[in-house]
Amino acid sequence: MIRRSLYDKLKEISHSDYYPFHMPGHKRMMGHPFLDDFPNPYTLDITEIDGFDNLHHPEGILKDSMERTAAIYGADKSYYLVNGSTCGILSAICGTTRYKDRIIMGRNCHKSAYHGAFLNHLEITYLYPQINEKFGIQGGITAEELEDLLKTSYGVAAVFIVSPTYDGVVSDIKSLADICHAHGVPLIVDEAHGAHFRYGEIFPVSALDLGADVVIQSLHKTLPAFTQTALLHLKKGFIDIEKIEHYLQIFQSSSPSYVFLAGIERCIKFMETEGKQQITRFEDHLMKLRRHLMEMRYLKLLDRSVIGNHSIYDLDVSKIVVSTERVNLDGRQLMDRLRADFHLELEMCSVNYVTAITSMMDTQKGLERLEHALKTIDQEQLATINQKEQIRESTIWKGSTSTSGISLYEAWTREKKRVLLEESEGMICGEFVYLYPPGIPLVVPGEILTKERIRTIALYKQKGFSIQGLSDYDANWIQTV
Amino acid sequence: MIRRSLYDKLKEISHSDYYPFHMPGHKRMMGHPFLDDFPNPYTLDITEIDGFDNLHHPEGILKDSMERTAAIYGADKSYYLVNGSTCGILSAICGTTRYKDRIIMGRNCHKSAYHGAFLNHLEITYLYPQINEKFGIQGGITAEELEDLLKTSYGVAAVFIVSPTYDGVVSDIKSLADICHAHGVPLIVDEAHGAHFRYGEIFPVSALDLGADVVIQSLHKTLPAFTQTALLHLKKGFIDIEKIEHYLQIFQSSSPSYVFLAGIERCIKFMETEGKQQITRFEDHLMKLRRHLMEMRYLKLLDRSVIGNHSIYDLDVSKIVVSTERVNLDGRQLMDRLRADFHLELEMCSVNYVTAITSMMDTQKGLERLEHALKTIDQEQLATINQKEQIRESTIWKGSTSTSGISLYEAWTREKKRVLLEESEGMICGEFVYLYPPGIPLVVPGEILTKERIRTIALYKQKGFSIQGLSDYDANWIQTV
Repeated sequence: MIRRSLYDKLKEISHSDYYPFHMPGHKRMMGHPFLDDFPNPYTLDITEIDGFDNLHHPEGILKDSMERTAAIYGADKSYYLVNGSTCGILSAICGTTRYKDRIIMGRNCHKSAYHGAFLNHLEITYLYPQINEKFGIQGGITAEELEDLLKTSYGVAAVFIVSPTYDGVVSDIKSLADICHAHGVPLIVDEAHGAHFRYGEIFPVSALDLGADVVIQSLHKTLPAFTQTALLHLKKGFIDIEKIEHYLQIFQSSSPSYVFLAGIERCIKFMETEGKQQITRFEDHLMKLRRHLMEMRYLKLLDRSVIGNHSIYDLDVSKIVVSTERVNLDGRQLMDRLRADFHLELEMCSVNYVTAITSMMDTQKGLERLEHALKTIDQEQLATINQKEQIRESTIWKGSTSTSGISLYEAWTREKKRVLLEESEGMICGEFVYLYPPGIPLVVPGEILTKERIRTIALYKQKGFSIQGLSDYDANWIQTV
Repeated sequence: MIRRSLYDKLKEISHSDYYPFHMPGHKRMMGHPFLDDFPNPYTLDITEIDGFDNLHHPEGILKDSMERTAAIYGADKSYYLVNGSTCGILSAICGTTRYKDRIIMGRNCHKSAYHGAFLNHLEITYLYPQINEKFGIQGGITAEELEDLLKTSYGVAAVFIVSPTYDGVVSDIKSLADICHAHGVPLIVDEAHGAHFRYGEIFPVSALDLGADVVIQSLHKTLPAFTQTALLHLKKGFIDIEKIEHYLQIFQSSSPSYVFLAGIERCIKFMETEGKQQITRFEDHLMKLRRHLMEMRYLKLLDRSVIGNHSIYDLDVSKIVVSTERVNLDGRQLMDRLRADFHLELEMCSVNYVTAITSMMDTQKGLERLEHALKTIDQEQLATINQKEQIRESTIWKGSTSTSGISLYEAWTREKKRVLLEESEGMICGEFVYLYPPGIPLVVPGEILTKERIRTIALYKQKGFSIQGLSDYDANWIQTV
């Protein structure tokens, strides 16, 4: 049996007509000089030789480069990350807390935030996002709830939230930062999906300009940069910069890739020069696409009309989120259809919606293909009476999860017992269970397995989603403590 | 002032005639089809879309690929690492120990091993390498000392050693593994510099074939692979595979680079096919180079004659280690001379020697350039009476460091006091102090600053080495607790 190699399969897709409405933001858009001009990567792939500085101890060309970036972004310090936003998030959390401190954290955070809390054995108090019932998506974090938690929680060292969410929902960072600072606590914002915010007129304002102390941005998600590259920005005042730096040294390879470092620098330089015009053109094409998609009868585009409700302070319109609530398709079926019949590969689907990621590298033709495909499918639909199962499974709302009092660290490191999922109600979960994407845990070690959560996981399974837990890939069994 | 970008400077060096006797192992050897054929990296840079599996939850093409690799290497499981050996070492240590356990660790390990011990708040008992006085390099780890420590230490969860060392010194892994297993403890071997061992007749046997339970190999250091790529191999029996996997999920980006993954797979495939012939040719050229370098009068090549002494069980002959003990140059001066006059860039220098890394991608011409340069410099020398300052600073020998009883975690997280280095004798160090390369800490948080260590750091400084500590880049000040 001849098995194909990953390399061959990657080359194959690079020559196919499948159009990527997913990360990375460069969209493999060959024909564009910015991408075409990049040399064979081996030619740039050096190590810390004379004159090329050291990422973990920058004194020369990397120090200069990162200082320029900090100046551009208005940060006190900016860091190039070669291990993704993941290492920035781990460093931000470990670097702003001490062993067994308490952190206030959005329950809808990426698993890396939970990992950071795990590493420092933190106690976690959760902020639950609001829920937009219509789309079955998470809304923002309310300032009121944060204030309440800060007033009533003891020993809080930091607050961590995600904004924008995977769906593009932005919280009121200014208010949240003000509240944090009034309590002497830093606000960390996972802005992994918002690296493009500062470039363009139609996007939300970056958390970095609104008072956040630590901001993590994935360059690759929405800008033309290599996957696994990101930025960490710090503002002085409520954080210990040196401590965060010491964790960056831990969580990043001591042999960082110069291909990545050059790719990061080059991306930022591009965005500050030719990229500006290109993003203006993209904004025009994007808004045209969105106007046209608003004409669909049954498929429903998530648009700015949600702003102001459910603590949705702003919306990243570069995310094309389309609800299937009113049609006889679920999110997975729509995504599969777009792939099979139109050769469009989307970023993700949930049960109720699909998400396409657009970026400035998208071609007008590509956006038109998406429009054509969605409209074609829309026109085939008949309105369905809204008796579809009400699934709000991707949303992490208050009451849907329940902590046991056992910390994440305790629960994840204890002896485990394997239990049939259907028989696990009321037990304490011993592992992370999540969908990827988006990588937000449905259940966290230490949480009680409620009837609701079990039902949600079972439903995902039934709908054909791949449930990722550590120990049981087919989701019949779950680890409990 | 026009400042050059990293990207431009990297392109410039790729077109220069500077020949790399340093990592990565591909040596940017353009003209070779294996490197030339690699496409523009953006074309392969995708995310976890349908059919391309998920590194953190492999079920398809990545699972197959890693299973093939495990079969080739004779491991029970092998993992592709995109955050360097660093993340493999962190995962190995955190995944074989529990909070506050004890680990027996070579004092000459890479800083990432210390970081792993830090993250799990481990107590560390050090194994000190033997010392080869003639070269001022570290020898191997003795089986006797390991046995003694295992007999007298309480609660040891794992043993961690580095073999080969940065200088190519290999310990007797078989004996060390047997001792560990007799005590029911896993042996973790940092074989970052030995990924080429299994490919070739003249190299030492890999630790994976000698009973080690966990082996970490940097692919990029000695094989044609991208910097920051590595392998982790596991053998069943003395470890909890699932626990190590859970740490891999923590320490690696949730958006791993498919360029890296493809590069890893492609490198292994190459090594199993055309690479075999190439390594045979390389071995011939290498042994010829070594024979010729043995003819030098004053510069002295580290050769196999050291085997059997100082617990040096075997030697990686692909490392060209040249002592300057008998000439009027120190290591730095020799390295600078090779760069300035011969356009040869070496991997590292210590005060007493220089190290050139050779690999199968080296050209015969390149190796001849090294031979010519070293011989030319050798011929200019007059024998110096051996009254040079005896510097054994890169060696970490028993008695040269002294623990205070305060754990690494405790010391690194405590409040610090800045003290002038020269006034710090007897105080407890609060930071890591090391040279990079090789990245082995001269002092670790929690160690007592002995007169000897202070003198060593001062000497390095005087010799123009860049001393890397966290807080004080010019090495006048040191943090104490």
